[in-house]
Amino acid sequence: MAGEKKRLAELAALVQGELVGDPEVLIGGVADFDSAGEGEITFVADLKHGARLAECRAAAIIVPAAATGINGSAIRVRNPYLAVARIHALFVDEPFAATGIDARAVVGHDCHIPAEVSIGPLVYLGNRVRLGRRITLHPGVVVYDDAVIGDDAVLYANVTIGHGCRIGNRVIIHSGAVIGSDGFGYATDENGHHVKRPQVGVVQIDDDVEIGANTCIDRATFGKTWVKRGAKIDNLVQLGHNVVIGEDALLVAQVGIAGSATTGNNVVLGGQVGLSGHIHLGDRVMIAAKSGVHNNLEPGAVVAGIPAIPHKTWLRSSAVYAKLPEMVRELRELRRRVAELSRAMTPGEDESLGNNG
Amino acid sequence: MAGEKKRLAELAALVQGELVGDPEVLIGGVADFDSAGEGEITFVADLKHGARLAECRAAAIIVPAAATGINGSAIRVRNPYLAVARIHALFVDEPFAATGIDARAVVGHDCHIPAEVSIGPLVYLGNRVRLGRRITLHPGVVVYDDAVIGDDAVLYANVTIGHGCRIGNRVIIHSGAVIGSDGFGYATDENGHHVKRPQVGVVQIDDDVEIGANTCIDRATFGKTWVKRGAKIDNLVQLGHNVVIGEDALLVAQVGIAGSATTGNNVVLGGQVGLSGHIHLGDRVMIAAKSGVHNNLEPGAVVAGIPAIPHKTWLRSSAVYAKLPEMVRELRELRRRVAELSRAMTPGEDESLGNNG
Amino acid sequence: MAGEKKRLAELAALVQGELVGDPEVLIGGVADFDSAGEGEITFVADLKHGARLAECRAAAIIVPAAATGINGSAIRVRNPYLAVARIHALFVDEPFAATGIDARAVVGHDCHIPAEVSIGPLVYLGNRVRLGRRITLHPGVVVYDDAVIGDDAVLYANVTIGHGCRIGNRVIIHSGAVIGSDGFGYATDENGHHVKRPQVGVVQIDDDVEIGANTCIDRATFGKTWVKRGAKIDNLVQLGHNVVIGEDALLVAQVGIAGSATTGNNVVLGGQVGLSGHIHLGDRVMIAAKSGVHNNLEPGAVVAGIPAIPHKTWLRSSAVYAKLPEMVRELRELRRRVAELSRAMTPGEDESLGNNG
Repeated sequence: MAGEKKRLAELAALVQGELVGDPEVLIGGVADFDSAGEGEITFVADLKHGARLAECRAAAIIVPAAATGINGSAIRVRNPYLAVARIHALFVDEPFAATGIDARAVVGHDCHIPAEVSIGPLVYLGNRVRLGRRITLHPGVVVYDDAVIGDDAVLYANVTIGHGCRIGNRVIIHSGAVIGSDGFGYATDENGHHVKRPQVGVVQIDDDVEIGANTCIDRATFGKTWVKRGAKIDNLVQLGHNVVIGEDALLVAQVGIAGSATTGNNVVLGGQVGLSGHIHLGDRVMIAAKSGVHNNLEPGAVVAGIPAIPHKTWLRSSAVYAKLPEMVRELRELRRRVAELSRAMTPGEDESLGNNG
Repeated sequence: MAGEKKRLAELAALVQGELVGDPEVLIGGVADFDSAGEGEITFVADLKHGARLAECRAAAIIVPAAATGINGSAIRVRNPYLAVARIHALFVDEPFAATGIDARAVVGHDCHIPAEVSIGPLVYLGNRVRLGRRITLHPGVVVYDDAVIGDDAVLYANVTIGHGCRIGNRVIIHSGAVIGSDGFGYATDENGHHVKRPQVGVVQIDDDVEIGANTCIDRATFGKTWVKRGAKIDNLVQLGHNVVIGEDALLVAQVGIAGSATTGNNVVLGGQVGLSGHIHLGDRVMIAAKSGVHNNLEPGAVVAGIPAIPHKTWLRSSAVYAKLPEMVRELRELRRRVAELSRAMTPGEDESLGNNG
Repeated sequence: MAGEKKRLAELAALVQGELVGDPEVLIGGVADFDSAGEGEITFVADLKHGARLAECRAAAIIVPAAATGINGSAIRVRNPYLAVARIHALFVDEPFAATGIDARAVVGHDCHIPAEVSIGPLVYLGNRVRLGRRITLHPGVVVYDDAVIGDDAVLYANVTIGHGCRIGNRVIIHSGAVIGSDGFGYATDENGHHVKRPQVGVVQIDDDVEIGANTCIDRATFGKTWVKRGAKIDNLVQLGHNVVIGEDALLVAQVGIAGSATTGNNVVLGGQVGLSGHIHLGDRVMIAAKSGVHNNLEPGAVVAGIPAIPHKTWLRSSAVYAKLPEMVRELRELRRRVAELSRAMTPGEDESLGNNG
């Protein structure tokens, strides 16, 4: 923790918010609504929680621009989540402190390693690895030959970076993630045996990407598997060979994307979503959790289901699903009544009507 | 293996079972039905397999209380699975043998480590780590600063425990699991860029929890992500930030639970189940494999499907699903017949009826 | 790269293809269609891409047997994927070069390790481990006591092999995979507490299997969990205790298979598929991505959905799904019309008809 306190006025300026109350209140950290107390700032994200504002014991509170009924000091902002993220980072982000290369790390030959790095014990670097400045490699990280990692990147414990893969600046990779495993590619011979297709491409991760724990990103068969700037990937996600993820994408946990599928920018994929190979999602596509997408989607499409359909349709159809047995009964009853009516009107025709029963 | 043989009478007393046959039979281990032989005990879990009792070559057999037709020696119990678990543990559980701290482990400063521990080579402990007695840390385990681990815990190869996380007594964590990675929390700015929200909470794992291989449990944004006493979590499960899992829960492999979802005690979540964030499951909720739950569930609810509905309804609805094309045909045929009848009765009105076709 | 160039005639002979053009063209490697240039061979996998043949700048091209309109040199083959896999391997597969046992690896007692191996730094081998010839163990690999690994196996970074597990010849295991974690087996006592059932079996992986990154394969309760010859398993897959996977199976990423399920040979399971425990899939079964299978399947069955139904039926039913709300409206309209007709014909009977509305 930086430990240094800030005036509320300073925080309001940082997030371009409107200050309410005492500009001189000193704030030393951020806490959640129920636990925040003296010297701390907290937040409410939307107005429906505004009724609880009076309960707040924090020194100050970040509130939506339209909030009323504030006792004490506050900062009004358009996006409370964004404001709290920025203010919180101000308090908890620490300046990089280089610890150098631990003697119990293993470093190959012809590596490029700046002086200002923190490489922990039990790290393995292959040959010709190129590291950026202010990089942090935690214990158990394995970086294979010829990999390149940018400035200010942080790789947590037991992360693997495959040979020749390229990791951008400020990338964060959580424990156990595997970048650059072989793609799942085989050709099947006349006996049904699968012959491995060499996977000679790489993975490229652009600046400001974050990758979750135990996530796997396969190298390309040829060329590169590519995660573009600012994309955020949760835990246990699978990206197949030659996948391209657009800028500022959000991929929630356990998403699986088959080989050569690509996405535009700012897509949001809910947890456990699956994409078929070779499809393309346009910019800003949103896919509900657990959906399965087999086809290209236009920019801005919002879909759900397996196979995915427009989300609004899915909401209606899934509501009907639970009533299917009732529909079957109604249909049967209607058939019976229609047959009766038919018989009453045109005796002798009823056999032909009953044939679907 | 402890290697020591036990009298059948002793085993029957251990599991409060009814002894059948020779109390003096000596048993040295447990085996499955088909391979069990001399000196071994086996079991049948339910009466439907009772017909095979005569084929048994084991020295003794654990059977349901109502079992008949037993040749030879047996123990009748209410719950054969439970009895066999306890008897088997008696034979295979070995007393803890401390090997100390391997010279090739890396230990930070100000750690609290009892004398009676087994810390393998290539283990990394940060600073101020506190370990319980009779703890076993396998090779490649990484424990970050300020973490606390209870007595008799076993952490298998390459497990990561994040800074400040707290692990209870007798907890077992399988290889590659990551406890305390950052929660997936971002605020999105006016340009669509995602700003990381600091994740400053911890993970707390209570006593007697078991966690599967490569499972990921994120730290809380504030406060704690919490797995309560006796919960058992399978492999490749994802728990988001601030999730709370109740006592004695069973989470089968590849379950994914979004941030701030909470469960009561004794819930059972089938494989690949997904829970939305911020929902609550009551005690004893059961969710069928692959289901997706978006709403709170009452205690004892049994549900299935995406979105989840009562399991009994789901069974009926899913049976209808395969017949949907047939229903469409029937509906079309009915429309045709009704239009015919309508025409026959009230000529001139048929156009208005066909408008959905 | 082997670096050595080959005559096109030699490559054509290797894949039993028909040579078109100049047999003396020298080829030094394989590249994809768009990037291939001088000295390289590329391919088109099917005729629909044949229109682009004229754009090809490669020295030669592998094409389907029926391809026409070839400018320059080519090899015509029945299965272009298979031919390119074999030719590509010829260029990129390098002969094994033993580096011995790194001084920073940890080796237990009574291990059997041939002279011709490559064991990297930070590898851990327990006691009585038996390794085959020309084995490659990457940094961070942990092999527990009594495990056996065959000739020419490659284990990437941070792979775990549990005690007593057996890995065949030419097996490839990608980073972070866990072979031999405990099965998820508990018996529940009268208080709802789960008592761990000892998991005393092993995992057996037969020859020529490939296992993806962060995949988990649990050891058997008794006996063995078994992956048979030539099966290929993608990333983040979960195999429960006592699962048996048949020869030449393909399991795509994030598949989950519950305990004691078994498959025949040459099955194909799409991404995120789930199998219930104790079921059996016949040879050549194919399961669409995201499906859930609860029952045995006959050889050659092709299924989809949750629960899985024949794939053709599923295609039709899922097309109807989006139209369910429309069906509800049609059904309501029909009921109304039938009630009207009924009323017109038999006044006084209409109440009994409206009772499902």
